[in-house]
Amino acid sequence: MEYFAAPLQNLIEEFEKLPGIGSKTAQRLAFYVLNQPVEKAEKFAHAIVHAKKSLCYCKECQNLSDKEVCNICDNPGRDKSVICVMESPKDVLQMERTNEFKGVYHVLHGAISPMDNIGPDDIRIKELVARVTSGEVQEVIMATNPNLEGETTAMYISKLLKPFGVKVTRIAHGVPVGGELEFADEVTLSKAMQWRVEL
Amino acid sequence: MEYFAAPLQNLIEEFEKLPGIGSKTAQRLAFYVLNQPVEKAEKFAHAIVHAKKSLCYCKECQNLSDKEVCNICDNPGRDKSVICVMESPKDVLQMERTNEFKGVYHVLHGAISPMDNIGPDDIRIKELVARVTSGEVQEVIMATNPNLEGETTAMYISKLLKPFGVKVTRIAHGVPVGGELEFADEVTLSKAMQWRVEL
Repeated sequence: MEYFAAPLQNLIEEFEKLPGIGSKTAQRLAFYVLNQPVEKAEKFAHAIVHAKKSLCYCKECQNLSDKEVCNICDNPGRDKSVICVMESPKDVLQMERTNEFKGVYHVLHGAISPMDNIGPDDIRIKELVARVTSGEVQEVIMATNPNLEGETTAMYISKLLKPFGVKVTRIAHGVPVGGELEFADEVTLSKAMQWRVEL
Repeated sequence: MEYFAAPLQNLIEEFEKLPGIGSKTAQRLAFYVLNQPVEKAEKFAHAIVHAKKSLCYCKECQNLSDKEVCNICDNPGRDKSVICVMESPKDVLQMERTNEFKGVYHVLHGAISPMDNIGPDDIRIKELVARVTSGEVQEVIMATNPNLEGETTAMYISKLLKPFGVKVTRIAHGVPVGGELEFADEVTLSKAMQWRVEL
């Protein structure tokens, strides 16, 4: 049974399709859009279609880009001999925020997960291998997620790249900065002990 | 500093403008849209513009409608002698879900709130008065929110309509069904005692 006028009901349903948006929130968002001037609603609608249509994958790092080669790969100030391998564009964003890493990235768009039927051919590993075989690369830092799928992917790729004589490293596990030991889980704490460094 | 390609950044910013959507959620929603086929993104964009452009206010009850007169006012099965006055279209939806009320509605689009500079002329009270003076109406049920603004609005409208010889009622206050008395606040509980009915 539809209590709202059809176009409103339709907009609410479109919002409901978004992840984490339930029916109450979808209603709230739809009413918010309706209370905006028509130009703002059009701007929002345009942003959706424009982002979808104009974005492609950088032909080097596979990150989302509006150009053939993304800003990071295109930047002559970045060190192309170090590749940081990450699972998603969101991870790249998070890493860029540290302002620490001056190399380039490679986005896998997923992780190996037999449980979800995602094998090595379903994520962008062969593109990484192609970059490594091109010869310029000296170190590949595996910065996949510190969970089962991420570790599996890191192990798989490191074995795959070893024959090419490239250094493959993994980001450190340990206790998070600002956290309290009391709340650290056993596995993290034991990794932090194991990987301890001299001061 | 922009870490994402411009169209993606733009889409994320559009999502961030929505109420209750922070930067992380906006990112998640933007990536979700990007992972959809282009037709779905276009459908979403179209729903926004279409809802905004095709919806108007029902000339009788002031509820949102895609026609000059909404489905409820247009329904010959509804009793036009009873008007339920509510603050927003969302409230009408909630009331319709009860399947109890067979009269028609009047949507005020707000409540009198001197703190927010909203006076009687800023909400659709004169349209309600016009309906009442047309003569067909016998009862006006004030179903504004049970808070300060809603009560003020109900009192104001009831005083305004009394001279026209129409019956003005207020929805009952009391303990919510399914609740526990232990958690009922004092005001609600005292209203529930005061408005008790014979069994």
